[in-house]
Amino acid sequence: MTGQLQAALAVSTVIFTLRPDPASDLSTLWLPLVRRTREPHLGQWALPGGDLPADEELAAAAARTLRETTGLTPKYLEQLYTFGDPGRSPGGRVVSVVYWALVETGEAALAVVDENVQWFPADRLPPLAFDHNRIVEYALWRLRTKVEYSRIAHAFLGETFTLAQLRDVHEAVLQKALDPANFRRTIESSGTVVDTGQRVAGVPHRPPRLYRYNDSVNATDLGPFGPAIG
Amino acid sequence: MTGQLQAALAVSTVIFTLRPDPASDLSTLWLPLVRRTREPHLGQWALPGGDLPADEELAAAAARTLRETTGLTPKYLEQLYTFGDPGRSPGGRVVSVVYWALVETGEAALAVVDENVQWFPADRLPPLAFDHNRIVEYALWRLRTKVEYSRIAHAFLGETFTLAQLRDVHEAVLQKALDPANFRRTIESSGTVVDTGQRVAGVPHRPPRLYRYNDSVNATDLGPFGPAIG
Repeated sequence: MTGQLQAALAVSTVIFTLRPDPASDLSTLWLPLVRRTREPHLGQWALPGGDLPADEELAAAAARTLRETTGLTPKYLEQLYTFGDPGRSPGGRVVSVVYWALVETGEAALAVVDENVQWFPADRLPPLAFDHNRIVEYALWRLRTKVEYSRIAHAFLGETFTLAQLRDVHEAVLQKALDPANFRRTIESSGTVVDTGQRVAGVPHRPPRLYRYNDSVNATDLGPFGPAIG
Repeated sequence: MTGQLQAALAVSTVIFTLRPDPASDLSTLWLPLVRRTREPHLGQWALPGGDLPADEELAAAAARTLRETTGLTPKYLEQLYTFGDPGRSPGGRVVSVVYWALVETGEAALAVVDENVQWFPADRLPPLAFDHNRIVEYALWRLRTKVEYSRIAHAFLGETFTLAQLRDVHEAVLQKALDPANFRRTIESSGTVVDTGQRVAGVPHRPPRLYRYNDSVNATDLGPFGPAIG
């Protein structure tokens, strides 16, 4: 492992949250983009990110550049994929290690928003710098695959939630309507959620039950080494 | 994305196959290692891999260095994870993009084996160069998580297989005995395998049924962009 090519390394992050789509009023996925202030792709929208300093962990660099550009500090970032096509950057080869996180609406609302940082619906992005449209496409595919078998939907919800709220997350991620009765049966038989015995307050007749995730299921989501950042 | 640190980049591969453990005669996971012929870690065992040339795709570089060191040419390699701790290599920072593949026993038998290339049981590795023990630990964790919900066990089996052969794969990966009746119920209710209507030839009484994977289930394993290498 000596004598390797000296290549440029960068980190980027894809941060998803759920918000209503103003066009349909249905929940949909949004992500923050940062306007580039230098060449190449000056003025174009890009994923938050930056260079990898020599002495910084990959996940720490991803968290720092995300914080510096958007003010967002997710509880943890997960490594998504490394993109390294030789032609992906016009100024010479750049290998980008991409991290991602899902954040609750309340956390997303803490982000900086100005003329150079804005949130976009994931399915209606402008042409992004570099191969960042492709990176978002990959992240959406992973999210849609993962929501089927893991507790990933939890990241968008509070500690407790109704089955309707959980179904809303699944519908937004999968971009299709789900039958309420089928969804209830599938979730209840999966053992991934637990009835808290409580109900939504302030609803007079048949208030919906509140559920929480079953911590004993799929607790390995973070990998064998724990969260990438504390 | 200009002005990044110029860092050293490498690719490595983790190749798993199933073989009997000589100690127990039960199937277990094995992987090929290559003895290092230069510093650092001269003489120590390491994962197959090498430098990333400026004009080569990541997956292509992983496939090429695997072929050059071991003679193995898996049908496709999947990106596993990128390891980039600042202290992981004594000669300066090296960021390694790690790929992995599962190969059938027959394919594994085509590999070069000499004093510098040997297969080791995954749970009894010697101390490896760099952080390669940690990389194998991560790969094992991903394999064990993934075998529960995907058709990944298929990679170790032929086109058709008995439920006992499929259970043997799951037992080897999970390193625990599984109850045959429970395993049969779980697999049959999952819809992931299809009864071919055929039975194992040459078995006189009650020959076991042959199954194949249901191609319509989990066909997205390879990701939205298809196989990393053709």
